[in-house]
Amino acid sequence: MILLLGAQSFQRDEALEEILLRNMAPLTPRLVVPIDVKKQPWEQKIPLHNRWHPDIPPVADVTEGELFRVEMVDWTGGRVRDDNSADDIKFLDLTITHYLSGPLRIVDSEGLPASPGDLLAVEICNLGPLPGDEWGYTAIFERENGGGFLTDHFPTARKAIWYFEGIYAYSPQIPGVRFPGLTHPGIVGTAPSVELLHIWNEREKKLAETSPETLKVCEVLHQRPLANLPTPENCLLGKIQKETAGWHKMANEAARTIPGRENGGNCDIKNLSKGSKVYLPVFVEGANLSTGDMHFSQGDGEVSFCGAIEMSGFLELKCEIIRGGMKEYLTPVGPTPLHVNPIFEIGPVEPRFSEWLVFEGISVDESGKQHFLDASVAYKRAVLNAIEYLSKFGYSKEQVYLLLSCCPCEGRISGIVDSPNAVATLAIPTAIFDEDIRPKHLRGRPGPKLIRLPDLLSCSSDGHLPVTQDQSGRSEP
Amino acid sequence: MILLLGAQSFQRDEALEEILLRNMAPLTPRLVVPIDVKKQPWEQKIPLHNRWHPDIPPVADVTEGELFRVEMVDWTGGRVRDDNSADDIKFLDLTITHYLSGPLRIVDSEGLPASPGDLLAVEICNLGPLPGDEWGYTAIFERENGGGFLTDHFPTARKAIWYFEGIYAYSPQIPGVRFPGLTHPGIVGTAPSVELLHIWNEREKKLAETSPETLKVCEVLHQRPLANLPTPENCLLGKIQKETAGWHKMANEAARTIPGRENGGNCDIKNLSKGSKVYLPVFVEGANLSTGDMHFSQGDGEVSFCGAIEMSGFLELKCEIIRGGMKEYLTPVGPTPLHVNPIFEIGPVEPRFSEWLVFEGISVDESGKQHFLDASVAYKRAVLNAIEYLSKFGYSKEQVYLLLSCCPCEGRISGIVDSPNAVATLAIPTAIFDEDIRPKHLRGRPGPKLIRLPDLLSCSSDGHLPVTQDQSGRSEP
Amino acid sequence: MILLLGAQSFQRDEALEEILLRNMAPLTPRLVVPIDVKKQPWEQKIPLHNRWHPDIPPVADVTEGELFRVEMVDWTGGRVRDDNSADDIKFLDLTITHYLSGPLRIVDSEGLPASPGDLLAVEICNLGPLPGDEWGYTAIFERENGGGFLTDHFPTARKAIWYFEGIYAYSPQIPGVRFPGLTHPGIVGTAPSVELLHIWNEREKKLAETSPETLKVCEVLHQRPLANLPTPENCLLGKIQKETAGWHKMANEAARTIPGRENGGNCDIKNLSKGSKVYLPVFVEGANLSTGDMHFSQGDGEVSFCGAIEMSGFLELKCEIIRGGMKEYLTPVGPTPLHVNPIFEIGPVEPRFSEWLVFEGISVDESGKQHFLDASVAYKRAVLNAIEYLSKFGYSKEQVYLLLSCCPCEGRISGIVDSPNAVATLAIPTAIFDEDIRPKHLRGRPGPKLIRLPDLLSCSSDGHLPVTQDQSGRSEP
Amino acid sequence: MILLLGAQSFQRDEALEEILLRNMAPLTPRLVVPIDVKKQPWEQKIPLHNRWHPDIPPVADVTEGELFRVEMVDWTGGRVRDDNSADDIKFLDLTITHYLSGPLRIVDSEGLPASPGDLLAVEICNLGPLPGDEWGYTAIFERENGGGFLTDHFPTARKAIWYFEGIYAYSPQIPGVRFPGLTHPGIVGTAPSVELLHIWNEREKKLAETSPETLKVCEVLHQRPLANLPTPENCLLGKIQKETAGWHKMANEAARTIPGRENGGNCDIKNLSKGSKVYLPVFVEGANLSTGDMHFSQGDGEVSFCGAIEMSGFLELKCEIIRGGMKEYLTPVGPTPLHVNPIFEIGPVEPRFSEWLVFEGISVDESGKQHFLDASVAYKRAVLNAIEYLSKFGYSKEQVYLLLSCCPCEGRISGIVDSPNAVATLAIPTAIFDEDIRPKHLRGRPGPKLIRLPDLLSCSSDGHLPVTQDQSGRSEP
Repeated sequence: MILLLGAQSFQRDEALEEILLRNMAPLTPRLVVPIDVKKQPWEQKIPLHNRWHPDIPPVADVTEGELFRVEMVDWTGGRVRDDNSADDIKFLDLTITHYLSGPLRIVDSEGLPASPGDLLAVEICNLGPLPGDEWGYTAIFERENGGGFLTDHFPTARKAIWYFEGIYAYSPQIPGVRFPGLTHPGIVGTAPSVELLHIWNEREKKLAETSPETLKVCEVLHQRPLANLPTPENCLLGKIQKETAGWHKMANEAARTIPGRENGGNCDIKNLSKGSKVYLPVFVEGANLSTGDMHFSQGDGEVSFCGAIEMSGFLELKCEIIRGGMKEYLTPVGPTPLHVNPIFEIGPVEPRFSEWLVFEGISVDESGKQHFLDASVAYKRAVLNAIEYLSKFGYSKEQVYLLLSCCPCEGRISGIVDSPNAVATLAIPTAIFDEDIRPKHLRGRPGPKLIRLPDLLSCSSDGHLPVTQDQSGRSEP
Repeated sequence: MILLLGAQSFQRDEALEEILLRNMAPLTPRLVVPIDVKKQPWEQKIPLHNRWHPDIPPVADVTEGELFRVEMVDWTGGRVRDDNSADDIKFLDLTITHYLSGPLRIVDSEGLPASPGDLLAVEICNLGPLPGDEWGYTAIFERENGGGFLTDHFPTARKAIWYFEGIYAYSPQIPGVRFPGLTHPGIVGTAPSVELLHIWNEREKKLAETSPETLKVCEVLHQRPLANLPTPENCLLGKIQKETAGWHKMANEAARTIPGRENGGNCDIKNLSKGSKVYLPVFVEGANLSTGDMHFSQGDGEVSFCGAIEMSGFLELKCEIIRGGMKEYLTPVGPTPLHVNPIFEIGPVEPRFSEWLVFEGISVDESGKQHFLDASVAYKRAVLNAIEYLSKFGYSKEQVYLLLSCCPCEGRISGIVDSPNAVATLAIPTAIFDEDIRPKHLRGRPGPKLIRLPDLLSCSSDGHLPVTQDQSGRSEP
Repeated sequence: MILLLGAQSFQRDEALEEILLRNMAPLTPRLVVPIDVKKQPWEQKIPLHNRWHPDIPPVADVTEGELFRVEMVDWTGGRVRDDNSADDIKFLDLTITHYLSGPLRIVDSEGLPASPGDLLAVEICNLGPLPGDEWGYTAIFERENGGGFLTDHFPTARKAIWYFEGIYAYSPQIPGVRFPGLTHPGIVGTAPSVELLHIWNEREKKLAETSPETLKVCEVLHQRPLANLPTPENCLLGKIQKETAGWHKMANEAARTIPGRENGGNCDIKNLSKGSKVYLPVFVEGANLSTGDMHFSQGDGEVSFCGAIEMSGFLELKCEIIRGGMKEYLTPVGPTPLHVNPIFEIGPVEPRFSEWLVFEGISVDESGKQHFLDASVAYKRAVLNAIEYLSKFGYSKEQVYLLLSCCPCEGRISGIVDSPNAVATLAIPTAIFDEDIRPKHLRGRPGPKLIRLPDLLSCSSDGHLPVTQDQSGRSEP
Repeated sequence: MILLLGAQSFQRDEALEEILLRNMAPLTPRLVVPIDVKKQPWEQKIPLHNRWHPDIPPVADVTEGELFRVEMVDWTGGRVRDDNSADDIKFLDLTITHYLSGPLRIVDSEGLPASPGDLLAVEICNLGPLPGDEWGYTAIFERENGGGFLTDHFPTARKAIWYFEGIYAYSPQIPGVRFPGLTHPGIVGTAPSVELLHIWNEREKKLAETSPETLKVCEVLHQRPLANLPTPENCLLGKIQKETAGWHKMANEAARTIPGRENGGNCDIKNLSKGSKVYLPVFVEGANLSTGDMHFSQGDGEVSFCGAIEMSGFLELKCEIIRGGMKEYLTPVGPTPLHVNPIFEIGPVEPRFSEWLVFEGISVDESGKQHFLDASVAYKRAVLNAIEYLSKFGYSKEQVYLLLSCCPCEGRISGIVDSPNAVATLAIPTAIFDEDIRPKHLRGRPGPKLIRLPDLLSCSSDGHLPVTQDQSGRSEP
């Protein structure tokens, strides 16, 4: 792989020479962050980071209008393996995530960096898995370590491996399904300013201090801390040398990458794919753009937490600085001018599906309890309905749970005003299955098949983690 | 024209005769529920109803496979007028809604009715506004009477009238916008059984008895009762004569039509349009199918409550009974076998848009407070972001609020697992605007226009209703 | 129902009054050409015409921006019946076609008519079959009377009847197929000027005088006159009284409606559907817009001649006059400024299909003879390939020939430069079939079914018309 | 580049080892034909070929179900340069084209090769330009050397260079345009059998002997030989050593690659892109699959001859052998069982466009002469209409001619039965332009811009080739 990169750089020098002689556009995007998947995240030539902080130094400059390439490790930096067990999932240390490539300092054609208050338009010209590393995984996290949207139903770690055939993915653990990926980066973001970082830490700390009982998701909460506050543990800050004084200060205040926030970050928006464009607010000089957490495919909601098909990958990007664009286009919704969110445009080459089977949920939970216009409860029920339905076609419920996390399904808030029921829907493209999954007259037909084998990868032994009681109204195996 | 219409009616009889002679398919759907929009809802030839109850007698039989037509008044039965004021909205009595056409008793080709446990597949072969009544309205309901998703921001009644030009709608009150309708019935449902009705009443009563403080939507709750419990007020039960003994008993227990529930009902799923198919559970003999609340167009969430373009209309339907289909296809999620939800398939002729501008929201509210994976808060912020953005193009915020309620925008749950932030998105098709609304380099351009006139219709005088204080962190005009 | 209709007509007057009082938009399109399908074409209240001529008087004025409705008989004016025989097709007199509604004189808001040199933008806001007449037909014309693209293969008259279920059509004569219609008018056109009419007559007369041998289509020519020159036979000229002096002069020079020409006319462009917009050149004062030949659905090429699903129908239109637009937007390609063609924009609600099976043809004919870059030969072979393929799924070849004429299939010119072979393709949406028609591994499966019954409607006796010899290289039953 | 490949092979060995140990699927497609773009076509490690012949030996075996990668030079093998002149186009020797990669021998999992009579399903899992060579070109060929569909209008050599930004292409020579590529191989084919080769040579020879006057395309014919018959000149036959006895025999009978034929070949079907599947007939043992002529994008018809964006590239393919599939699925249309054509399925990730401007043409040529149902004349006029229209927006006509050759425009045969006029259409997605190109009310606006600079690349001196007179009815600059 080093040789490979060397060869490419060699070739590029020749190309460069030719370009200089002929005064023409470069033929190939400039590689600003190379990744060698044979190496550990902390051994990469260009150092990575796994926190948000204004003082993480840029690793490269990129000029407005230039086409450049950023390569990325998968979110865990290679800790999840293409093997036969879900043990790596069960015990994964979440303080290491997500490894990001960057930050990149964006400058205009005259060398002036993007400034706070500008809007940074980032076009995703191309993306994909890293050549030679064309595989990914999805997983159910253990309830006591990570959890997930349905952790009360599926508390045990499971894993599926996905192989790629060009635009298509298939998994030996979820047979009968193959689909084109709507590939996207889970994380694209700019660095927060000191002030914004402070806002984050304050509000999340306040949340973490609240009684968990009042903050359940869908009446369930035993899967994870309420918020992932700064911690020096496994903190990686790019060029900032570990265990130095500067590092210690930063590590104690640098924001974790798990939630999406004002700077973009871990938005997990599945349509941020080829040809799309994201408009990011700029909070620090140079914008300090970072990317990571590549997903071959994801369903809306990414319900199983590690639900997208996680992989290493590359982005080919082009940036444009819209001077003063934050003020012009992003009105804050909140107490400060920093309370904004990115905007994006969807690209023109998404997979086209014309037939969808749609499951509906209302805000009545599994115990039959009526909730008040709660979209999360409604979406949970829609997902449960889809799981129950598809499990009639021979899948285990865990298989469907993972499938709905990663296939290009759409989760919608359909009605949010008809009290007391919110209505949410989950739409599944029928073409991803190798058989017709629509309800049909039975007329003597044998009905859906009873079982599909094999099933997901499980752990070598269950029960290692302290397991809390499933308190939902419905007992699941 | 009178002659022409006369000829058409005459022709229908002739056609019928011809059909009987030649034993062929009828050329025209059979009209089973006609509506005369000049008459009041309670004066229609075939009586309407505005409650769900197992004992509302069917108004007609329909045979499996037969193409039939149902006409419907608008949800208010004509109480909202095409005039110059929002007064009708401000004082609308919500106990009268929604007027439904039906129930229809569905039988198979041998005359046997659909039975509890069957699945009723209802195909929407065609639909549209009623000829001669091609207009609709959207409205912001007063905070103290109906409210809406953003009632804390927009507490005052407003109205917009929409005219239809075939597939397109435009409103004099929201200039510069025109779009094709994704027309659909807000309500399609089967009658509940006695047992299911009991479940509804119990769980909603329990909710209504809860302290409202613990059940705020997005920390806001002053707009309406927590649940709309049965009330004889304005209760209409079809063929059951008002004020009879039977009527009194039923009126006191018949469920209100506002929320979507296990029987379908007011799901407000905007994609339930031409060519789609809904699979409804059957709870009573004959299924007792009712429909109403036609929408010319609606955005996901229908955020302003009366947010779809409300109209009278017709449906051309075809039913199929899947015997035993509930057991075969609908696994309950809840304590009884009745805790199921319908499934549907999207039709092939939705408007196609290829360019979308997408707004994102995270679960941090307008006061800056961090919420825990709350999809409703995230969606609220996405909607607020879109309102702020579009208001830069010359619209009042109320105009955008209404527009996002009714245009074919998509509301998605993008991320529901990355604590503490849920991420929701609102995608708006850019083609509905008469100018390019994407963020652009300014380069000396004048920027978005400052104002678009006229604005929404307002009330003749504000302040009639007792107004509670806006308690959200952000003061809106 | 009669009462209902009466109420509607009454209502229109009231609505009109209200509109005048309130100065608002009308709620319903103005009906400018009503049709009574129980009457003969020449008995309609507003007289029809079946020729193009500058002096056919307008039947109504329409104002720019106004939404109006035009109703139309089917192209034959009711001569083809919903019966059990193809006899009506076999002996149909083609001099009677096509019956058109109009001409309409288009004026601007100040009452000034469209002028020669303007461009008339016509938006198709809505369209459909006439209520009460929801059926259509497709047919193979007899080789000696009309013919068709494959008349050498399928020389005998056949017919299929189609019934509509809202957006869907199905035919008892072509089982296993059902599809949403891409409904459109076969004919939309403006009146030619005297000069343009002269050009048409001259060039077509010259063609008709040529030796047919040099003008074969795909080496086949025995089906029809080379051109359909003016003839008084069955000529209908709207308000011009038949057999008057003026009528005689006009009837001898008025252009037949069969081909599409500079004025639009019989373009048979299947995508000119709901929401589309056609920009027509204006050659005479008032534009004199005529429409007719409604198609519920058509495949590219309309290969069997009467290949679209022919029906009566209505259009809801809106016009805009672009003053001087011909000069501004339509550069002539030919010897005079009149040698132009219309432009159009496709609407947003076409049926969406995502899976297509594509058949390819090259310019080698059925005898194996190599032709030089002949797109017609290539397309013929693509259609023949598709017919052969689909006939393996149990259809007769005539059934497939008709199906490909009317289903929403796409005919493309893929390569027109790689001598000696032109390459054409025919793409068929797989979703219109009730079974998977893609090539599959056989693995012991029985293979495609052998037969589907019933078949197309045939004639009571064949052989009435003098039958010429099939001279193509391939003998077909 | 050798080093690069070495590195990849090295890496792959490790991967292979891991796979063997773990008994798992390979993560990366196997590279069966590598290309080094720094080398000449005849110097590649795996020899290329530029003719069709049954005896060209396979260069590799590929197993059914295996994912493999084929790399390809551009069709000219690098003779067209990214420079500032069209001289290379003007004098290009067409006997060298097209360089193909392969043939590949396809075997099943038991090692048995595909046999004549089988159908070879080839899935295009991925494709793209070669890394480091991300550019392409389109060109107008000189009338006397290659020509093109409109060579009578545009007889002079011109060139445009295109650069790629991921999925997008733009050209400095055609400003204001940028579009996502519908990338595809121009050529995919199996080897002909001896008998099929004989059929080709006979029929094309017969054509070449015909009087050119009777075989004009659209009445124009001075651009090229009627057919490109076998010639040893520049003949490359893969592993067959040049100038050996075997080579001489084969070179004199091997078919040229210019036209598409029964084996697929140069079909130039623009939708044969990512995720599509082509079903090729098998004529020789092993199928002997060859590919080449990669196009970043092409418009239907590829009207300027070298009209697609030509580039080097790669394919990632997967094959399936359908035993006996030719008989089962491909009925011959012609005198022998070999007269068949491939079938294909379109993939799910084509660029989506929702707004199209459509130009129409009828079979009346530029001189005003009426032709009889000639789809080529109609398409020519549609293309000319589009060129004239778009040239009003500041482009030279040559720029538009090239643009329509390569952008994702659709060429349709709309009507082929309404004598005497065939109707063809050319639909252009409006989103590829940086401004709104639809016809608009002028209302005092300045109208379309007058000029866009720069223009296409021209030759250093014109007039080198003997120029014949433009004999079409219309004189073009």
